[in-house]
Amino acid sequence: MQRDGALYYWDYLQLDRLLACQRLESAAHGEPAHDEMLFIVVHQAFELWFKQIIWEIDAVRQVMARDVVADRDMSQVVARLDRVTAIQPLLIHQLEVLETMTPLDFLDFRDHLVPASGFQSVQFRLIENKLGIDPDHRMRIGGAAYTAALSDEHADLLRRSEQQPSLLAHVERWLQRTPFLHFGTFDFWRAYRQTVADLLDRERAVIERNPNLGEHERQEQLANHAKTRDTFAALFDTGRWEEQRAEGRRRLSHEAFLAALLINLYRDEPVFHMPFRLLTALVEIDEGFTAWRQRHALMVHRMIGGKIGTGGTTGHRYLQATSDQHRVFRDLFDLSTFLVPRSALPQLPPEVTEQMQFRYAGAG
Amino acid sequence: MQRDGALYYWDYLQLDRLLACQRLESAAHGEPAHDEMLFIVVHQAFELWFKQIIWEIDAVRQVMARDVVADRDMSQVVARLDRVTAIQPLLIHQLEVLETMTPLDFLDFRDHLVPASGFQSVQFRLIENKLGIDPDHRMRIGGAAYTAALSDEHADLLRRSEQQPSLLAHVERWLQRTPFLHFGTFDFWRAYRQTVADLLDRERAVIERNPNLGEHERQEQLANHAKTRDTFAALFDTGRWEEQRAEGRRRLSHEAFLAALLINLYRDEPVFHMPFRLLTALVEIDEGFTAWRQRHALMVHRMIGGKIGTGGTTGHRYLQATSDQHRVFRDLFDLSTFLVPRSALPQLPPEVTEQMQFRYAGAG
Amino acid sequence: MQRDGALYYWDYLQLDRLLACQRLESAAHGEPAHDEMLFIVVHQAFELWFKQIIWEIDAVRQVMARDVVADRDMSQVVARLDRVTAIQPLLIHQLEVLETMTPLDFLDFRDHLVPASGFQSVQFRLIENKLGIDPDHRMRIGGAAYTAALSDEHADLLRRSEQQPSLLAHVERWLQRTPFLHFGTFDFWRAYRQTVADLLDRERAVIERNPNLGEHERQEQLANHAKTRDTFAALFDTGRWEEQRAEGRRRLSHEAFLAALLINLYRDEPVFHMPFRLLTALVEIDEGFTAWRQRHALMVHRMIGGKIGTGGTTGHRYLQATSDQHRVFRDLFDLSTFLVPRSALPQLPPEVTEQMQFRYAGAG
Amino acid sequence: MQRDGALYYWDYLQLDRLLACQRLESAAHGEPAHDEMLFIVVHQAFELWFKQIIWEIDAVRQVMARDVVADRDMSQVVARLDRVTAIQPLLIHQLEVLETMTPLDFLDFRDHLVPASGFQSVQFRLIENKLGIDPDHRMRIGGAAYTAALSDEHADLLRRSEQQPSLLAHVERWLQRTPFLHFGTFDFWRAYRQTVADLLDRERAVIERNPNLGEHERQEQLANHAKTRDTFAALFDTGRWEEQRAEGRRRLSHEAFLAALLINLYRDEPVFHMPFRLLTALVEIDEGFTAWRQRHALMVHRMIGGKIGTGGTTGHRYLQATSDQHRVFRDLFDLSTFLVPRSALPQLPPEVTEQMQFRYAGAG
Repeated sequence: MQRDGALYYWDYLQLDRLLACQRLESAAHGEPAHDEMLFIVVHQAFELWFKQIIWEIDAVRQVMARDVVADRDMSQVVARLDRVTAIQPLLIHQLEVLETMTPLDFLDFRDHLVPASGFQSVQFRLIENKLGIDPDHRMRIGGAAYTAALSDEHADLLRRSEQQPSLLAHVERWLQRTPFLHFGTFDFWRAYRQTVADLLDRERAVIERNPNLGEHERQEQLANHAKTRDTFAALFDTGRWEEQRAEGRRRLSHEAFLAALLINLYRDEPVFHMPFRLLTALVEIDEGFTAWRQRHALMVHRMIGGKIGTGGTTGHRYLQATSDQHRVFRDLFDLSTFLVPRSALPQLPPEVTEQMQFRYAGAG
Repeated sequence: MQRDGALYYWDYLQLDRLLACQRLESAAHGEPAHDEMLFIVVHQAFELWFKQIIWEIDAVRQVMARDVVADRDMSQVVARLDRVTAIQPLLIHQLEVLETMTPLDFLDFRDHLVPASGFQSVQFRLIENKLGIDPDHRMRIGGAAYTAALSDEHADLLRRSEQQPSLLAHVERWLQRTPFLHFGTFDFWRAYRQTVADLLDRERAVIERNPNLGEHERQEQLANHAKTRDTFAALFDTGRWEEQRAEGRRRLSHEAFLAALLINLYRDEPVFHMPFRLLTALVEIDEGFTAWRQRHALMVHRMIGGKIGTGGTTGHRYLQATSDQHRVFRDLFDLSTFLVPRSALPQLPPEVTEQMQFRYAGAG
Repeated sequence: MQRDGALYYWDYLQLDRLLACQRLESAAHGEPAHDEMLFIVVHQAFELWFKQIIWEIDAVRQVMARDVVADRDMSQVVARLDRVTAIQPLLIHQLEVLETMTPLDFLDFRDHLVPASGFQSVQFRLIENKLGIDPDHRMRIGGAAYTAALSDEHADLLRRSEQQPSLLAHVERWLQRTPFLHFGTFDFWRAYRQTVADLLDRERAVIERNPNLGEHERQEQLANHAKTRDTFAALFDTGRWEEQRAEGRRRLSHEAFLAALLINLYRDEPVFHMPFRLLTALVEIDEGFTAWRQRHALMVHRMIGGKIGTGGTTGHRYLQATSDQHRVFRDLFDLSTFLVPRSALPQLPPEVTEQMQFRYAGAG
Repeated sequence: MQRDGALYYWDYLQLDRLLACQRLESAAHGEPAHDEMLFIVVHQAFELWFKQIIWEIDAVRQVMARDVVADRDMSQVVARLDRVTAIQPLLIHQLEVLETMTPLDFLDFRDHLVPASGFQSVQFRLIENKLGIDPDHRMRIGGAAYTAALSDEHADLLRRSEQQPSLLAHVERWLQRTPFLHFGTFDFWRAYRQTVADLLDRERAVIERNPNLGEHERQEQLANHAKTRDTFAALFDTGRWEEQRAEGRRRLSHEAFLAALLINLYRDEPVFHMPFRLLTALVEIDEGFTAWRQRHALMVHRMIGGKIGTGGTTGHRYLQATSDQHRVFRDLFDLSTFLVPRSALPQLPPEVTEQMQFRYAGAG
């Protein structure tokens, strides 16, 4: 239906089809409910954006899957992840728009939708898998797997996506290859451990000698200090790290985590500008989906109270629980636990920083 | 295609069709451009929301078309207009997401889209007509009518929508019927004119007697005061009002404007609670679309610079101009010019305020 | 310092003082950290907005404290609560701005701030108390009362504010006075119970007779149905309600809850337009602070990882826990559990609805 | 006033002073107006954020003022500009919060504020000067300089700030130094001109030979093509460029503009990752302030209608005009006019791209 053979906005966007996809169940049952249109449009807008997010994540996964990720590709990778974080506030905002529907209005058509449910959003589950959710971390819905409420075709699709390397897996491999973990005579790991050991010793000395502390406070602070020391000890001991991974408390390999630490600590070196932005984007994506799940839980509470959700689940409490449990890049949040102040940072040898510059500049 | 006869989220939302509507022109030309997906998804999301906005405006127009708008319907009318204002920030936000596409990325597929253009958004034009844009106010695009770039079917649809009573027309009729403009012995118009006359006289006296003013300042302030007096004179003279309407500088009838003034000034009376909210919602809808057009203009400037837009228009300058010229409820903004301070407000007679109460309360 | 005796913007806003309140601890220690300015400005902006929120809540509390809340005051009450909900997204947004500070940048001055902490925000605690947080619900911080980290003066201030009637208390009293709970021969409570009993019986019959259900599914659905019946039974039994209140699972009195239910169910009656908006505003305020606490928890996790917060607390887990536990208007969310579809709603007798109209209209 | 010598949140933020800076003029005149508090708090929050924005811009100006801007500083420069763009939506959002005050509420205290006005925001004027507004571009307020309404001290401060090198000036110098404009045998300017010439010739041929075009359309398209050719001719002719600069239609030097074009076209090269982000950040800052000015104009229209503003200006029309005229980085928007598709981009010689890599990688 193009005009004079020329491309026409309406046709390009396939609006004949797109705008025919809103079919009110309530109308089909002879009781048209005005607000069902909003319900449909909001959820369709979600699914459009989910498609876009998958499009970006897949493009990033494709680049990150390479044996070598070229530096020149980093800007685009970061831009695509940043686009995901630009979309996420839209998703939250859409929940707020949905909340202009009151619970009583929802009741006008809610029964017609049973048992359909947002828990059946295949694309959102795909996003989770593509990001790298641990299948063992998934909340079960009423004792059943998350695929139980889906069609066979969709359940298959999701199980297959669990088998494909996730963004988390690609990022892990990419981190492990960071050239500067060991570079010439420089050994980041050794330098960092020494720095931490010195810092902890100094802190302990301060507590022990502080004349203003009463004995009770001193003991309390020493106990806290011992906990901090143990947290670092768990980082320094690859065996304990692997235990934590086995328990699902860590996702990244020890080496990948170290590389992420290196990038965070020396992020001002030109070579780490884009890697640092990549790691930051992953943190923001995790934060964005967590915030969305939390708002979703609140919205469901508001809309259906303590009732069972349309998908047969217990509703807002389930959603609230997943908001924390379905996080993928928690390790990158935990990185902050292990940062050391810039002032205490081991200085990189000149032959290392030189390699972190641009060629034209190093030549100058 | 329901699972076991039960409603299935995927089918309910018609995702098979919805998610098949994204067809990249660049791919069809053998040069797939990654960012064209974003371009399509953003514009489709716009169109979904435009459909929703039309849904709400039509529902409101239907209620407001009645000879008597029942008080019990007012809450719903306001809620539906408020929903439009809840959606509008989403539209602006979506422009910001589109701006994650850089101009160079747009160039990768821009030529494939010529001459399709956002100016061809039939639904957005419909919204403008349904709100009540004056057809004579419409910017012409390169000398041609706004329908020139549309298919015959769409051009017809829009011309027909110009003939139907707009929200503005309905609101005007509803305002004109406001029972309290003249109620028993109370004549709002007379009381208001007297109040304004007194205020202006008092202000003039203050200027004339102010010992701290130099002669130059006094003359300046008197000149300003004369302008203000003339602004009110134009309001008090129905002939001049009609002239301004003929010139397109006013849209509402004189009586409707007065009623809007009455509602704003006495908005604390229970009977005016919802009418005041209705008028406020209209102001916010106007503001929301104006802001959207302005951001759109900036986005286009950023994306294509000073080039001719994909629709053959001069791009951002056209959009910037429409942002002001296509406003519908400007009269309601201008209301503020004519407000008088609460302290100077003529008091309503008790027999009037009594009628503005709820029956149960008036009885108490 | 006014110019020529005339009011000057700079002086009016007291910018000499306001803009002198940013004193960097890091600079005082000889190690100026650029990002500490952001840290201070964000927190000062929080406190400015907290002051504004208190200003609005206090104004509302003052009106709601009256023995009779006049209908003409309702519009203003709602407008002021709506202003709070307009401010809340700003607070969340400010957290996002604060997150432009990286964890490493925070380390540059974090130690200088110990033991100062956001947990010491007296104004935020005041807001919680004024809204009506149950003191017994407050999370303890490391075993200590929430006032333990405060100056004596501030701890006193907060304890006194716990004694003053909260917004929740005022709303409860106002709800209990709703004239239409019993009006003439109409008894909402009886009509509602009957409606629910009929609905539950009908639902049970549907499950029992549904030929498409297998025995296992039927039993499951019957079990669910029994739970629903029990939820309603707990509502119908004032004794059980009081037990739940004693356990802190309900806050509102039984009668106030019923009135809130009445308002929600018959919100289209003119007399309930503003009361319904008031209840909705309270839900949104609760939601807004909950969302803010959740984002705050994420921000803290990102900024300091698993470390102990500057206030000696365990940081993000504490904040995450308060986000749910410190909710005040949860009862109003739970209302949705007890709504019945409009189609099943007992019709109000004409002599009741007549009293719910405006006097001028009832006369018409 | 620290507790036990330990830093206390309340004292750290100087809340005793900060929260004492809200003094209602209306109260001082014996007619306390509830909404004046909001008016003050919003404007104080603006000023806090303006201070923060100045803090960031000054830090960036300091780095950019150096004879050589080290690559390692680029990440921080970009981060600080990005922080400004993160703050800007807050400013717009604050206007929306201010709009919860109705025009009638504003009238309750508006007269007390005369002649104080937002036009007297010294900090905002400072921001404009520091960014690099052309003093000759400044709108005059009622025929007077923008400093006329300010105290002598503030007027001086602003005039001095006009003399200091602006961010625009620093960015211009930095762009002019871009090493790759001419690098070895590669001459970007020559290569780009040739590319454009070829593209234009090809486009003309397409129009001339297109068998589907009627004669009228062909002439129209040829006329458009001639205009495009002339736009490029103006870019290629440094004399015409300088004329446009003299007229204020261009701000950047010809060479700086070319460098910006180079960076945009070859932004995927590692060496241009951060420079591209810097230029993008400047575009977004310009867009953010423009959007803020536009919303401000709408807000003023809504609040005071067509009246004269509190600062004696003509109000919203003045603001609307500045929103376009006060833009600083318009050249960077216009860049898009001159982009060529990636597919037509002249390929950089390998010896050039090699120098654009990191040393460690070039060595590999």
